[in-house]
Amino acid sequence: VPLPDRFLHALATIAGDHHVLTEPDLRAGYETDWTRRYHGSTPAVVRPGSTAEVAAILRLCREHGVPLVPQGGNTGLVGGGVPHNGEVVLSLRRLDAVAAFDPGSGEITAGAGVTLATVQEAVRAQGWNFGVDLASRDSATIGGMVATNAGGIRVLRYGGMRQQILGIEAVLSDGAVLSRMPGLLKDNSGYDLAQLLAGSEGTLAVITAVRLKLVPQQPQRAVALLAVEDISAALRVVSAVRRTMPSLEAAEVFFPEGLELVCRHARLPYPFPATHPCYLLLECAAQGDESAPLAGTLAAIAGIRDSAIATDRPGRDRLWAYRERHTESISVEGIPHKLDVTLPLGRLPEFEHRVRAVISGAEPAARPVLFGHAGDGNLHVNILGLAPDDDRPDDAVLRLVAELGGSISAEHGIGIAKMPWLHLTRSTADREAMRAIKSALDPAGILNPGVVIPRA
Amino acid sequence: VPLPDRFLHALATIAGDHHVLTEPDLRAGYETDWTRRYHGSTPAVVRPGSTAEVAAILRLCREHGVPLVPQGGNTGLVGGGVPHNGEVVLSLRRLDAVAAFDPGSGEITAGAGVTLATVQEAVRAQGWNFGVDLASRDSATIGGMVATNAGGIRVLRYGGMRQQILGIEAVLSDGAVLSRMPGLLKDNSGYDLAQLLAGSEGTLAVITAVRLKLVPQQPQRAVALLAVEDISAALRVVSAVRRTMPSLEAAEVFFPEGLELVCRHARLPYPFPATHPCYLLLECAAQGDESAPLAGTLAAIAGIRDSAIATDRPGRDRLWAYRERHTESISVEGIPHKLDVTLPLGRLPEFEHRVRAVISGAEPAARPVLFGHAGDGNLHVNILGLAPDDDRPDDAVLRLVAELGGSISAEHGIGIAKMPWLHLTRSTADREAMRAIKSALDPAGILNPGVVIPRA
Repeated sequence: VPLPDRFLHALATIAGDHHVLTEPDLRAGYETDWTRRYHGSTPAVVRPGSTAEVAAILRLCREHGVPLVPQGGNTGLVGGGVPHNGEVVLSLRRLDAVAAFDPGSGEITAGAGVTLATVQEAVRAQGWNFGVDLASRDSATIGGMVATNAGGIRVLRYGGMRQQILGIEAVLSDGAVLSRMPGLLKDNSGYDLAQLLAGSEGTLAVITAVRLKLVPQQPQRAVALLAVEDISAALRVVSAVRRTMPSLEAAEVFFPEGLELVCRHARLPYPFPATHPCYLLLECAAQGDESAPLAGTLAAIAGIRDSAIATDRPGRDRLWAYRERHTESISVEGIPHKLDVTLPLGRLPEFEHRVRAVISGAEPAARPVLFGHAGDGNLHVNILGLAPDDDRPDDAVLRLVAELGGSISAEHGIGIAKMPWLHLTRSTADREAMRAIKSALDPAGILNPGVVIPRA
Repeated sequence: VPLPDRFLHALATIAGDHHVLTEPDLRAGYETDWTRRYHGSTPAVVRPGSTAEVAAILRLCREHGVPLVPQGGNTGLVGGGVPHNGEVVLSLRRLDAVAAFDPGSGEITAGAGVTLATVQEAVRAQGWNFGVDLASRDSATIGGMVATNAGGIRVLRYGGMRQQILGIEAVLSDGAVLSRMPGLLKDNSGYDLAQLLAGSEGTLAVITAVRLKLVPQQPQRAVALLAVEDISAALRVVSAVRRTMPSLEAAEVFFPEGLELVCRHARLPYPFPATHPCYLLLECAAQGDESAPLAGTLAAIAGIRDSAIATDRPGRDRLWAYRERHTESISVEGIPHKLDVTLPLGRLPEFEHRVRAVISGAEPAARPVLFGHAGDGNLHVNILGLAPDDDRPDDAVLRLVAELGGSISAEHGIGIAKMPWLHLTRSTADREAMRAIKSALDPAGILNPGVVIPRA
């Protein structure tokens, strides 16, 4: 359904002619996400330059009953930022001002369109860091990261995006602007709307700016790569290190199947003389050198088959490469189905033990590659060898997750990709409460329809 | 308005005769909170023993249009748990089971009625601790602490109650049970209802159980009491220590006016030979002795006039007493007005500089005593010498808070006490969004009416 001319004209009046993109080649980058698995088409991409323009656009859309999809860096993995049904795309990337950085208190205000890398660069020179880090840092925007409650490798120590938020500015579907960004470390004055919007995937409001808490920079890092007999052993190591070393920042796990791909495609030597059933990568970060306490802690733990520790940058990078180059090495083999799940820590071993059989039971040709954030109970289940639309293995994995009390999405969100399975881990009462909240804040249903809340 | 007999009969059928209290002497303890400033009356207190009973009670109340006030340990400070308009009191104290403690992952599930002290005792024997601590630990319940997003002295390091929540079970006003408590460290599958309920003060749902994250016990503690020239200097010290010592757990501030009361009423010697304009108490906690690094860090900071450091328990307690005995020492002088406010850290000095004049401008006989959590920008403004219902100084202080971009409630909540001032720091858009959410989840308005959301 083409948009009425007067709608497009009004849109251009608000944002400026050259910020309303209707030509196919200009729209294309906004219609497909970077997984290239999710794409749609939009009659127009609008790129507002201010919160007031966002508000005016929302009022216009609501008046005309035009649905829209808010979009940040378009680095999502579940199709939550792509126009699936001809929605207008509301790109927030022009809201890219770093408005206020206070090195004394360790806080920063960033527009929704500021990239993670920009925030990191702005604060590192002053001895601060940002608690969330992830591979798409050069493209992922702060607004999108809050809207999806992005995670990454430092959640173990600092929490996800939700935990970094000190304030939010967002526009409701009627154009009203929620603005609460004084940078207060405590605030118990009514409902915490920022926490409700975090992880709501653009369905309740359009986030336009965020006040973020920073963490002190920890200049000295120690990385250990450990070979262990199974994921239970890996979890015992994480538990022991976590309890004695507050400097523990990351605890990543992977398996021989992934290591083989990484060593082959990234041309890396195997880390140890023998292969082992499970690998655990730990990183500690502190003001001083943590390698001796880390080695001491590890020496007291039974069941570590082999280990390597590095403190200098090249050595640390070398160890991290075995974990970090999983994604690209998997991609060389094909386009995987990616399932991002969490289990209660106590059920993670049973899940890991059963999931491969569950996958091959659904499709014998499937080749699972698992890796993830052991400290958080979060595994990324990549499945190679599947047809793009063969959802049977996905279904089998997510049912196993539900059976074991886990979540069908740990950090990627629901988007449209996980909608068919949301009922597995969110009860009817949960989903009805979510729908009631959606109807309360977006009664016309114009914000990211079909995401999180099923279409009516 | 007395309750219909058939309502009371149905209530007794659900919870058992002896758990529906209608006799005045049995009700009395539930009608007045421990400040003794807020009281009301209730026709009945009901004490359910299970989540199913809570759900049945809510269905019954909704059917009869009977409003109710959820109540935990009744240790609130803003009148949020007291029946002001003849509401039924729903006491959650019987939900006192510690259902699941997993020492491996550091998680515990507690019924809403479990006290903070019970959780602390349960986990300490296994090397864990709970991130939130506060003086009312023997009475305050986990459910009430989540409902009010309680804070305390460890927020600087671990966050408030909101940050400890891994899952929640709660009953909506129609009796539907939200239950999401697998203990997942990450979960991005739709709206985070637990985070919405945290701090909603019993107005959206009745919390019946919570899954909580624990923190590793830190056996060695170092406490420093510092004399500094003003609160700006105190904040500079906190900022410097925070950036280099992740073990910093508390940063408390007080002033000569409070120290004089404490030394007089608690019969303590003055801590230093001279008196000073501002005092800062720091506590670090770690696996090893932090006193040397703390002393080293402090030695490099200009503007510290005097200092004392203690690592043994008696020495630490002696230093903490100057801060902890403020509340009781103030009480000896009279019943204070208590205002619990946060400021952006950068505005805290201006606030502290102006607030005494603002108070005496409103009432010359008023005697302010300030203390609080410097690391969080959170001051407790106690005002002695006021008539109980003289709100002019309160009004003046809260307007100053609003002018400086702060919050009228840092950790106590809004209750009924702060309702007249909520508009100062929550915009019309904020309050309309809150009302929309309230109407969505509690359309009949039976849950804690008049708290956070004004009566219709």
